Amino acid sequence: MTDSALLHDLPDEFGRVKPSGNDYFGTAGDEIVAEMKAGKIEENLRYLTSQGHMAGTKQDLEQAEYLKEEWQRIGLDQVMLQPYRVQLSHPDVENPNKVYLLDERGEVKFRSSIMEEGTYDESIPPAFLAFSPAGSIHAEELVYVNYGRYEDFLKVEESGIKVAGRLVIAKFGRGFRGDKVHNAQRFNASGVILYTDPSDYHPDWQNGVPSYPTTFWLPGSGIQRGSIVWHDGDPTTPLYPALDGSYRVPEQDTDVPRIPAHSISYNDALKLLVNMGGREAPKEWRGALNVTYKMGPELARKGWSVKLEVNNIKHIVPTYNVLGVIRGSEEPDRYVIYGNHRDSWTFGSCDPSSATAVQMEMVRAYGRIMAEGWRPRRTIVFASWGAGEYGFFGTTEMVEEYLEVLEARAVAHLNVDLAIIHTYNLLISATPLLHKIIKEATKRIPAPDPSLGFTTLWDHWTQRVRAASPELMDYNLASLSEHSPFYQRVGIPTSYMVWEINYEEYDWNDYPLYHTTFEDFDIMKNVLDPDFSYHLAIGRLWALMGIGLADALILPMDPADETAMLRKMVTGLRKDYGAELEKRDINLDHIEAEIDSFEEVASTFSSTVANLTDVPPLLARQLNDQLMMLEKCYIDTEGSPVRPYMKNMIFGTSNFNQYEAILAPGVRDVLWEAAKCSSSSCLTTPCPPASCTAKWEAVKQQISVLHYVIHSAVLTMKDIRQF
Amino acid sequence: MTDSALLHDLPDEFGRVKPSGNDYFGTAGDEIVAEMKAGKIEENLRYLTSQGHMAGTKQDLEQAEYLKEEWQRIGLDQVMLQPYRVQLSHPDVENPNKVYLLDERGEVKFRSSIMEEGTYDESIPPAFLAFSPAGSIHAEELVYVNYGRYEDFLKVEESGIKVAGRLVIAKFGRGFRGDKVHNAQRFNASGVILYTDPSDYHPDWQNGVPSYPTTFWLPGSGIQRGSIVWHDGDPTTPLYPALDGSYRVPEQDTDVPRIPAHSISYNDALKLLVNMGGREAPKEWRGALNVTYKMGPELARKGWSVKLEVNNIKHIVPTYNVLGVIRGSEEPDRYVIYGNHRDSWTFGSCDPSSATAVQMEMVRAYGRIMAEGWRPRRTIVFASWGAGEYGFFGTTEMVEEYLEVLEARAVAHLNVDLAIIHTYNLLISATPLLHKIIKEATKRIPAPDPSLGFTTLWDHWTQRVRAASPELMDYNLASLSEHSPFYQRVGIPTSYMVWEINYEEYDWNDYPLYHTTFEDFDIMKNVLDPDFSYHLAIGRLWALMGIGLADALILPMDPADETAMLRKMVTGLRKDYGAELEKRDINLDHIEAEIDSFEEVASTFSSTVANLTDVPPLLARQLNDQLMMLEKCYIDTEGSPVRPYMKNMIFGTSNFNQYEAILAPGVRDVLWEAAKCSSSSCLTTPCPPASCTAKWEAVKQQISVLHYVIHSAVLTMKDIRQF
Repeated sequence: MTDSALLHDLPDEFGRVKPSGNDYFGTAGDEIVAEMKAGKIEENLRYLTSQGHMAGTKQDLEQAEYLKEEWQRIGLDQVMLQPYRVQLSHPDVENPNKVYLLDERGEVKFRSSIMEEGTYDESIPPAFLAFSPAGSIHAEELVYVNYGRYEDFLKVEESGIKVAGRLVIAKFGRGFRGDKVHNAQRFNASGVILYTDPSDYHPDWQNGVPSYPTTFWLPGSGIQRGSIVWHDGDPTTPLYPALDGSYRVPEQDTDVPRIPAHSISYNDALKLLVNMGGREAPKEWRGALNVTYKMGPELARKGWSVKLEVNNIKHIVPTYNVLGVIRGSEEPDRYVIYGNHRDSWTFGSCDPSSATAVQMEMVRAYGRIMAEGWRPRRTIVFASWGAGEYGFFGTTEMVEEYLEVLEARAVAHLNVDLAIIHTYNLLISATPLLHKIIKEATKRIPAPDPSLGFTTLWDHWTQRVRAASPELMDYNLASLSEHSPFYQRVGIPTSYMVWEINYEEYDWNDYPLYHTTFEDFDIMKNVLDPDFSYHLAIGRLWALMGIGLADALILPMDPADETAMLRKMVTGLRKDYGAELEKRDINLDHIEAEIDSFEEVASTFSSTVANLTDVPPLLARQLNDQLMMLEKCYIDTEGSPVRPYMKNMIFGTSNFNQYEAILAPGVRDVLWEAAKCSSSSCLTTPCPPASCTAKWEAVKQQISVLHYVIHSAVLTMKDIRQF
Repeated sequence: MTDSALLHDLPDEFGRVKPSGNDYFGTAGDEIVAEMKAGKIEENLRYLTSQGHMAGTKQDLEQAEYLKEEWQRIGLDQVMLQPYRVQLSHPDVENPNKVYLLDERGEVKFRSSIMEEGTYDESIPPAFLAFSPAGSIHAEELVYVNYGRYEDFLKVEESGIKVAGRLVIAKFGRGFRGDKVHNAQRFNASGVILYTDPSDYHPDWQNGVPSYPTTFWLPGSGIQRGSIVWHDGDPTTPLYPALDGSYRVPEQDTDVPRIPAHSISYNDALKLLVNMGGREAPKEWRGALNVTYKMGPELARKGWSVKLEVNNIKHIVPTYNVLGVIRGSEEPDRYVIYGNHRDSWTFGSCDPSSATAVQMEMVRAYGRIMAEGWRPRRTIVFASWGAGEYGFFGTTEMVEEYLEVLEARAVAHLNVDLAIIHTYNLLISATPLLHKIIKEATKRIPAPDPSLGFTTLWDHWTQRVRAASPELMDYNLASLSEHSPFYQRVGIPTSYMVWEINYEEYDWNDYPLYHTTFEDFDIMKNVLDPDFSYHLAIGRLWALMGIGLADALILPMDPADETAMLRKMVTGLRKDYGAELEKRDINLDHIEAEIDSFEEVASTFSSTVANLTDVPPLLARQLNDQLMMLEKCYIDTEGSPVRPYMKNMIFGTSNFNQYEAILAPGVRDVLWEAAKCSSSSCLTTPCPPASCTAKWEAVKQQISVLHYVIHSAVLTMKDIRQF
């Protein structure tokens, strides 16, 4: 399309000068690493976990105001308490939710607990799943659906047990709890009971391995709380900010669960499971309780019944983000955003207060280096998000409100949700443009525990990387945490990191005490990170990443990492759907050719930058603008045809599990449907052939869109001296 | 929402220094004005009109290649021939379209002409309406529907004549021809005949006033060609670029006319009209032919019939944009785009070649000042768009391909479609941010005809401004021309200008020779602008606007013009729908409050800028970025609920007339539907009350979106030293 008559003998503004090296952190980097203290983090965590701080409560607001005052005292340039009026779901404490087992005369044989044993604190909510509608289901049938994944429901139905109209019971784990309820609703179940089977939360309990408080394993009375809303953000204002006066979708039109769901402990689940009838569950579906796992639908004793009673209430209430700002000296209109949600279901010593404690210490350290005269080139924003547990409500509403501004100005969003769930190794997910700064930063930070023989955090991280997935980092951001609206809606480079378990030792999804009352200060202090050195290490990493991104003249981002990701995306599509595509003459070669073009412009860009020194500020801005816009090219206004709100065409989540990241979500959404349609197990059985044709048309259309967004990236990264 | 703890004792980068004055053009401005020559424009027009140059023909490609070579010769930095593979509709020259009148035995009494009298040129297409489907309608009924506007069809139906299944005949004028066909299709007509009634195209013909070639009035054999597609851009690739390998919507799913339509002369229309029966048409509906205008549906003689035969063919063919680039010296990644479509239905001496001739001369003059060492700060792009007549196909596809790049980098798009349709006064429509530079530029240009007593173009323009609408400029960009995708899809500041008629003397919509074979060089040379001085004046204005926008350190844009527009928008909504809104307690006060906020941040911005001198380049870039992003805030990804492709929530078109501009199209789309629903004449009669409630919900939702986009503008324009 282009002509060769380009660039007639014009002066070359890029010059040909020596590289400036790759110290992205400067003395401020060394200073902030030295300034941060484990003891301070411990103090912060003690404060934060002194009470429960669920979103919408006075305790949460107290913590927001505390942070605000701290950050003002520290001397940040601007501190805001930013309220959004969102719909939250809370339990009715006067009338808590319960699951009952009743005998043939209707007498209650068993009633589920509303709180963990041996714990009581007014600030801790009784058991509930946020956004379960209120309702009561009384049923003589109960179906066991394993983890409640889509494929589990399919298997149940294929085995001849219909789910429609029936109550189901599913284990927590192996996916987002909201999707378990979503799947149940897709299969027309009447209600859902979720529980934490010890197979995932305390596997060796029968061998006498103790649980909390001496270990991190879940006691029998632990109840996982959590939200089951499957969309990010306030359900009454989809795509738009929940401001005063904002339009609200009428209640009946919000996309939230329509069937009641509740969470119980494994002690309580046992009471239901022993009373189930029907065939025995397949071997791989059985948990670790002392019971024969049965499928149902009938109960063991005729006339007995199960009653699920949910009394949650929904209301529109303010949730508060706290934003603290260090104004950039040269480019105040470029933002590096640190994010962490502040609210917690219980005491939140892992989720999220371990990270909040770190964030507080990081801000303090930033304040110290600012007091010595340092100021970053670009603006740094510290965000303490409200109502994160509900589905990133505070974050989503802020992204929606500031959408245009963030599109034009945001450099990166660095998210830590929970800092610690174990201390084996760092798990880091990030969009490709952040991979470089993460690697560089870990090399500058001491290893958290010298006794392990590692010198730097880089050594610890790289030498303990999982054998099963030898890549240091992945792109598996999913809708796990607050980063979701940043990359899904705006395409802002974003990262997520946490100290994790050794997956070769334990095959976890959730950590055992996740969202239970047992997630308290003591478990952190006595078991998980007694000297807070792992907190400190992740905090130093977080701090250095921000300094590098906010202060380096040229953004420390490597577009070659982008190329690698794009190639993996195509490899993955070929692996999963290559045969199906080939059968229909649908080709991905043109996408690979576009990636080749991207690689070419990206490497030209990189070598141009590598040859620069004494870069004038305006030229730096121009080069940075290219990098800053790159991942934003992936946003398509129309989104996936299956889920129009899924607007990032490269990074997204599975439509059946918000915790599962996928590349090319638009293509994969329609491919999944088309492949299903062509197979026997169509979502709407039987599939009319006409709708199958339309589904394969949608595949071709989405592959074209995928090509298009990569093409946009090529146009963005090519030399700006050419149009 | 914000806190008072802002901006602690920080140095003020904006400084407090003297204003730099308002010479946005420098010596380059004077030089380019002096360099441009009327005689050169005349030469260019003679070349361009030497043959017809319809899109998709070899003649059009010839002109594209000619421009490309010229621009290379002139020394532009980059020249590209940019092909898009779009679907075009052409007449079958072997088998041209016709309208027949047949008697009761089926014998042809009359057959419509396929070409104007006394003209023949192989390069000129026979009569056709592009994107009419091929088809043959043979009917014993014909309904007269005045101008074929929505309200005309309503009135016909209210008078008791059903349109469904019937052929209709309508006059050209008072709206976009494609919407006439769209309305006919909405009312389920079987086909459409359009003609140019002398009441609009030669009103005094009966008084002996001559027509072409001695005047610009339309002879009886003139046939208006044109496209009837009601979406901008290639219909097979909506929202995405028509590149090789792009996904194409299957033919049956494209949103194009489904009923045949054809265009005839008023000589030929007379033959049909005299043979119509039924009631006499209302007085205000009658045209100026010597006939009693009747409504139909029956013909005057029993058994007679009308046959409409359309043989158009559709095919995917390349259309070519020519892009010429002057690379900016300081900010090559900022684009000021000059646009003009190149293709024409016939010789195109007005549409568009009058402007193409001017554009060619402007590029030549730019080349001269470049040869003397001048180079603009920002990049200038000259665009000669392909397939503009079809519905801005070349433009739309380019905007779609470069969407991300244009969002991030485009400063303005300066469109001239046709330079001259008369020479009474300039008509200028522009988004508010361009009003300032237009005013400033006209002050620097000599008046086109000193004998009129005007010194500058400013004098001519301002003293001849229409009494009926005393505003110098309006925002009525509509989908009149190539600017449409720029402001509708991306929110790029854009302008449109043309030398026009005195509307107090003639009440035109189309100029009489519009899209007929008579639109040739002679009419321009002998009647409209014999010495090409009006061409020259608009060309100089166009050139200066670009120089000001591409070269001024701070963009010469005044956000106060934006405030004024926003206030007018609210006033208009209140005027048209105030009572309806009040009845339902729907309030616009919060929108006005947001406009107040906008005014505040905008005036702070302006006074900050006014106090600056010696602005460092990076600071200039930051301020310019705010201005450049401002009108882009109006884009909402979801678009109007009625027309999701209408994504600019402030500037748009009527859903019933693409030539009619409206402010707040999202709100007005749903308000129109809601108000109709609540009245007796619902689109789908009778309206179920439930759907009415939903329509008023949509009104509330869209008012919220309107508020939202203005709020985005506030966040964009506020001082960047605050987050």
